[in-house]
Amino acid sequence: MTKEHDLINRYFAPLCSNEDEAPAFGLLDDTALLHSKTSGDLLITSDALVADVHFFANDPAAAIAHKALAVNVSDIVAKGGHPTHYLLTLALPTDLDGDWLSEFSNGLAKAQKLYDCQLVGGDTVSTSGPLMISITLLGDLVADKMVRRSGAAAGDHVFVSGTIGDAALGLLLRLNDEKLASVDLSEEYRSHLLEGYLLPAPSCELAPLVANYASAAMDISDGLAGDFAKLCAASKVGGVINTKLVPLSDAATNALAQSSKLLENVITGGDDYQLLVTVPASKADEFQRSTSKMTRIGEIVPADEGVVVLGADGKPFDLAHGAFDHFRAKGQ
Amino acid sequence: MTKEHDLINRYFAPLCSNEDEAPAFGLLDDTALLHSKTSGDLLITSDALVADVHFFANDPAAAIAHKALAVNVSDIVAKGGHPTHYLLTLALPTDLDGDWLSEFSNGLAKAQKLYDCQLVGGDTVSTSGPLMISITLLGDLVADKMVRRSGAAAGDHVFVSGTIGDAALGLLLRLNDEKLASVDLSEEYRSHLLEGYLLPAPSCELAPLVANYASAAMDISDGLAGDFAKLCAASKVGGVINTKLVPLSDAATNALAQSSKLLENVITGGDDYQLLVTVPASKADEFQRSTSKMTRIGEIVPADEGVVVLGADGKPFDLAHGAFDHFRAKGQ
Repeated sequence: MTKEHDLINRYFAPLCSNEDEAPAFGLLDDTALLHSKTSGDLLITSDALVADVHFFANDPAAAIAHKALAVNVSDIVAKGGHPTHYLLTLALPTDLDGDWLSEFSNGLAKAQKLYDCQLVGGDTVSTSGPLMISITLLGDLVADKMVRRSGAAAGDHVFVSGTIGDAALGLLLRLNDEKLASVDLSEEYRSHLLEGYLLPAPSCELAPLVANYASAAMDISDGLAGDFAKLCAASKVGGVINTKLVPLSDAATNALAQSSKLLENVITGGDDYQLLVTVPASKADEFQRSTSKMTRIGEIVPADEGVVVLGADGKPFDLAHGAFDHFRAKGQ
Repeated sequence: MTKEHDLINRYFAPLCSNEDEAPAFGLLDDTALLHSKTSGDLLITSDALVADVHFFANDPAAAIAHKALAVNVSDIVAKGGHPTHYLLTLALPTDLDGDWLSEFSNGLAKAQKLYDCQLVGGDTVSTSGPLMISITLLGDLVADKMVRRSGAAAGDHVFVSGTIGDAALGLLLRLNDEKLASVDLSEEYRSHLLEGYLLPAPSCELAPLVANYASAAMDISDGLAGDFAKLCAASKVGGVINTKLVPLSDAATNALAQSSKLLENVITGGDDYQLLVTVPASKADEFQRSTSKMTRIGEIVPADEGVVVLGADGKPFDLAHGAFDHFRAKGQ
């Protein structure tokens, strides 16, 4: 498990309800389920981005705004909810000017329209450090319950949305990483991968499917392998993912055809913001027929069989470094 | 108005509901009023603190935790609500160790017990910049409506809670400011003022009074004079505050007796986290009788009479620099 995970478990989980109880479920989920005296049920989540940790300080301001909202939308959708309102906290370096803020707020306006939610508050502070954006997003449940990480059972099928690994390969491109030195990609493929990193695209239309079919779900933000291990741990089960079944974009397929080593980045790299969903075997066919956006990649097994990711050769991947940790990323 | 105010008005108010409408009221209030399909009414607010802007990096970690929660509780109480749940986002410099985090989470545990609310989520990120703590706090309404900044009318009486200026004088002490060079304070008085800055103490028991009597209310975070001007602007009224009526602690009284120039710090300095409340004249006596914690300091007048703060000599203070702005504070 990651440093962030350890830190939360040790210092902050004791301040909230235990893992079997709302609202916080021991901080095992990325989203809480509120039920207060004057309100009904409400989803709430919070994700923060720091310049040169979660994005590049010179990324377009509109793209940074989109990403800050999208990573939170991704959490709400994964719990079977629709985003409704958000609060924005900005820590602004003193050298950011009005043009940057104007582009940022235009980007945010576009993103909130796309995700059908509205700004309701927040805070703006000055910092001598890097730009930081923290968004707290609220959401309504689509059905009558929040889908947790902990509901997977042996026999369930494992699905992911969209394609996996584009963002991780896009990040390698941004970093001019030597792993890509021998890889020749068309401009179109390069753009696709760079955009995968820059503009995560959670799909709100999947929320009802999650709500109606999933036994467990989470969004994939820290890499498929590591997040699958987290879901299995929360559900107290084991699981098998077959990388040959993992959906890839044409661009990622092309990159992997030139360098099979990149599979590790695809499976363990962060920033996918796709859904990881388990569905009971009895509902799996119906679930699969109801959408073209979800791909079956494995199954849940008893806990004592462990968590296994099968490589292209059919042998298990070493998951020791499977969890992408923004604390470690980029030398932070 | 402050730089932060300009920035919000210009770039972020266009992203939310206008000033007459929930949930965001054009971002004129520090707190939003949510009403979603699956929930009833719910208060929500967010305030962030940055090291060496809003607190000193070497303040005790438990005090920093207390302050981070208390400044948000202050906003909820000022709207006539009780705190219920919060999300914590921490941006941690890499040199903070486990001891610091342990002290911080212990302080937070104590503070959430004091304010009867519970952690439900958040995020932890690494930063190369200063420590930053952002809390989003939710609250239930005590009565059936949120008390806004905009409800004051000519003839209303103006009240504040507790004592004013302790935090501003405590900050001067922390900074060894030359304004205090000629001021000789006992250890007890010094401790009182330093604690006023370090440990803001909003009072949840005032929430029902605010809910039942106030025509308008806000918490005083950026200085009494500046925040009074904000409340008057939101209510489209003028107002008069008489500084001779402003409640002071024994420590502040002693300091002012030695240097009358400090009155400006008391009236315009930030971090009071007391309540500023207007009450219709017809209810003012009953309100005053119902609590010993609120002091009448002035009245609301028609807009064309402006906002006036009368000094000890009975002449108006110059309010040009009346609003304390953390963007300007301490050279940030």
